[in-house]
Amino acid sequence: MKNLYSDTIVAPATIPGTGAISIIRVSGPDAFRAADAVVSLKSGSISEKDGYTIHYGEVVIPSEAEGSPELLDEVLVSVFRAPHSYTGEDSVEISTHASAYIVSELIRLLTEAGCRMAEPGEFTKRAFLNGKMDLAQAEAVADVISSTTQASHRVAMNQLRGGFSKELEGLRTQLLEMASLLELELDFSEEDVEFADREKLIGLVKNTLSHVEKLAASFRQGNMLKNGIPVAIVGAVNAGKSSLLNALLGDERAIVSSVEGTTRDTIEEILQIDGLSFRFIDTAGIRESEDTVEKIGIERTYRKISSAEVVLGVLDSSKNRANFEADLRLLLDKISGSPASIFLLLNKADKLSQHDINNFVILANNIVTSLNIKADILSLSAKTGLGLEGLKSALFASQKDLLTAESGTLVTNLRHYEALTQSASSMKRTATALRSGIPTDLVAEDLRAAIASVNLILGKDLGLSPEQVLHNIFAHHCIGK
Amino acid sequence: MKNLYSDTIVAPATIPGTGAISIIRVSGPDAFRAADAVVSLKSGSISEKDGYTIHYGEVVIPSEAEGSPELLDEVLVSVFRAPHSYTGEDSVEISTHASAYIVSELIRLLTEAGCRMAEPGEFTKRAFLNGKMDLAQAEAVADVISSTTQASHRVAMNQLRGGFSKELEGLRTQLLEMASLLELELDFSEEDVEFADREKLIGLVKNTLSHVEKLAASFRQGNMLKNGIPVAIVGAVNAGKSSLLNALLGDERAIVSSVEGTTRDTIEEILQIDGLSFRFIDTAGIRESEDTVEKIGIERTYRKISSAEVVLGVLDSSKNRANFEADLRLLLDKISGSPASIFLLLNKADKLSQHDINNFVILANNIVTSLNIKADILSLSAKTGLGLEGLKSALFASQKDLLTAESGTLVTNLRHYEALTQSASSMKRTATALRSGIPTDLVAEDLRAAIASVNLILGKDLGLSPEQVLHNIFAHHCIGK
Repeated sequence: MKNLYSDTIVAPATIPGTGAISIIRVSGPDAFRAADAVVSLKSGSISEKDGYTIHYGEVVIPSEAEGSPELLDEVLVSVFRAPHSYTGEDSVEISTHASAYIVSELIRLLTEAGCRMAEPGEFTKRAFLNGKMDLAQAEAVADVISSTTQASHRVAMNQLRGGFSKELEGLRTQLLEMASLLELELDFSEEDVEFADREKLIGLVKNTLSHVEKLAASFRQGNMLKNGIPVAIVGAVNAGKSSLLNALLGDERAIVSSVEGTTRDTIEEILQIDGLSFRFIDTAGIRESEDTVEKIGIERTYRKISSAEVVLGVLDSSKNRANFEADLRLLLDKISGSPASIFLLLNKADKLSQHDINNFVILANNIVTSLNIKADILSLSAKTGLGLEGLKSALFASQKDLLTAESGTLVTNLRHYEALTQSASSMKRTATALRSGIPTDLVAEDLRAAIASVNLILGKDLGLSPEQVLHNIFAHHCIGK
Repeated sequence: MKNLYSDTIVAPATIPGTGAISIIRVSGPDAFRAADAVVSLKSGSISEKDGYTIHYGEVVIPSEAEGSPELLDEVLVSVFRAPHSYTGEDSVEISTHASAYIVSELIRLLTEAGCRMAEPGEFTKRAFLNGKMDLAQAEAVADVISSTTQASHRVAMNQLRGGFSKELEGLRTQLLEMASLLELELDFSEEDVEFADREKLIGLVKNTLSHVEKLAASFRQGNMLKNGIPVAIVGAVNAGKSSLLNALLGDERAIVSSVEGTTRDTIEEILQIDGLSFRFIDTAGIRESEDTVEKIGIERTYRKISSAEVVLGVLDSSKNRANFEADLRLLLDKISGSPASIFLLLNKADKLSQHDINNFVILANNIVTSLNIKADILSLSAKTGLGLEGLKSALFASQKDLLTAESGTLVTNLRHYEALTQSASSMKRTATALRSGIPTDLVAEDLRAAIASVNLILGKDLGLSPEQVLHNIFAHHCIGK
């Protein structure tokens, strides 16, 4: 698979303009020549240096017309020789001051020296095509980078190190063995011999199927560990939703004011609680509005509620009993259809006596019971912080099964989930076909489809249009990886 | 100056969670030992590796209680041996996947191995204290990183390479020579001899003074090249200020809607026009308002106008003549006190005939002339893009002297500007003292003060509390530099 690509790619591997150092990556057959054209070392050239060495150099912008040549930056060049590099190709990493100007000029110079701007994920795509990793591992690179908790990191790192791939390889081997039994039968089909014991085959398919189904079922858990558990914060205008979000996050994320209807855009913020990511979604207040911008926000609110795992219904308990009850009923009307865990939060509890709070809690409890809605009721104050720790504990407790659930391999990638679901369907068809005694070649076709779905995850035998499959996958990676 | 510090510092040199690669820097006498405690190489240890080499290794989080040890990441370690490193100390750079979780865990492991989190700019501070660069050069590091145009980059790189320092060293030498002449006189003061020719001394002081004043005067230009030329966009509510900013920037930066008073916070955006940075400041609409949030925005608007170099006054020319004139007069009332270049922009010109536009331009011209205000009048449409290129050209033309002004050294740092201003004051006092014939020891004192101010820029002889001076300077640097 060596020198699959004849062109040399370049991209920043860090976000320019932030931090202290920027790294520009170059990979491909011309990497050393291009770097030598742009960077002057103190002695010798990059082309003649050993792999895994670092060299100080200067980048000078050639003079245009009468201007004098201009020093762009002093840089360090790290040299990696094929196949001992991330991509498996000749590569250099150029370390510069983290200036957006320097990075863009350096990339301009490198493209003038023959490099092409890399597509998103193209370095990792080359690593895959050069056999440095399989497709599931290549996809895990992006997941490792975006992991923010121990749980999500562990899942991604297991996938990167080939844990998931190994499990899939095992499944694939089983499927291939069944397929070869059937193929053998086909080869001797004119003799009308049934080599494979149908009952045994059905047993094998069912075994493999239950394994695949277990993997597919792990996606719900894996996805929440990876992307955070969606928590919608909803409630009447001015009930204190933004204040609650800010209090939970501990800084002034949203503009908070006493003017009604301030929160026009939904804001999403991640909060880690004991190793679980909660993705809080602040929403526009629930009320009828004639304001154009406000209306858009309220429509968004309803969409967010329907996709949330947890709904925090915020109520202003400083209102009188009638208004409080009206707000509560409107709120319940909007959220009762959601399959989410519901928390009713009696906010502004600092303004009430314990007696009044208790009365509101009892009122709320009676209403949810009468409506047959399951909801936890907590009183708190976003302003003073009263009850916030209790809310965090309750949130964590409601979702902690995600962490303690049977460890094993977790699927976190939608593409893998879909491929596994497809593979499972094909296996179910295989089992049915085996049972109904339809011709072996049709059974074999279903089994081959089941194998193809697993191949799709690993990046094996991608068929007629592998470029399209790969493009869709790596387009989601970041530039420079 | 070697091993000035006994502790070893660590910090990320890239922003964790962005890009493809993160770099963690470690510097100090224990850098190799700490890295060895955290990273396992395939063979050997970091402590025994040569400088300027790279090594593959794995970072494992030791198991807690019954848990198994967990692979945090596969990393590359770059080794730099004192004094051949950025700081002049033993240093390593650890390259990881750019995950916030990995970076924070790796830093936790390194601090457990004895490293301390670096303060902002502490790596560069150590480079200064270890004699790798002077103070003006060390400060230029932050400027090089934040440079976004060729002009600002050139100024910062010149300072980093010591161009500014060399000029200051020249000034300092001249001042020291004058001082030594005076000191010689003081040594022989009992003999009442005047060694130094007073007239010649006065001439020398004046020469040096004019050089220092020229440097100090370059700050206005340098600061605008570095931070962008402040341009306030002001006008009546709904005149199209946000739309204009978006049209100039070419994307949807601010929320734009047809609801009046949408822009509550001021938004600042940088636009490069032909190598000049313009810092556009969108402001709240000028009107009387009872809305709390809105009022705060309008107050901010007035502050932004007073500090702007250019004011873009946006007018809705789709209004009738009376309302247009009222808006214009209110606008001119607010901005006429500003020393800025004023552009009056007749927006929504797409809705008018050329005849009507001409009438409005003539009306506006008559009013500004009668009020004795200097302003350029342009018609345009933020919606269709009509006239935007003309506005950009006019903006650039109004400020292009910044680029073509005499090259030489530009001061871009407020601290340097203040020190130069102080030095100039001391020199003026020196000249006056020399002329009035007051005792030599008093003259020498003024001269020493002039030298001390120059020393402050270079970081020489910082006196009794150098730590305070250095802290104030490096606190503005980013972490990891």
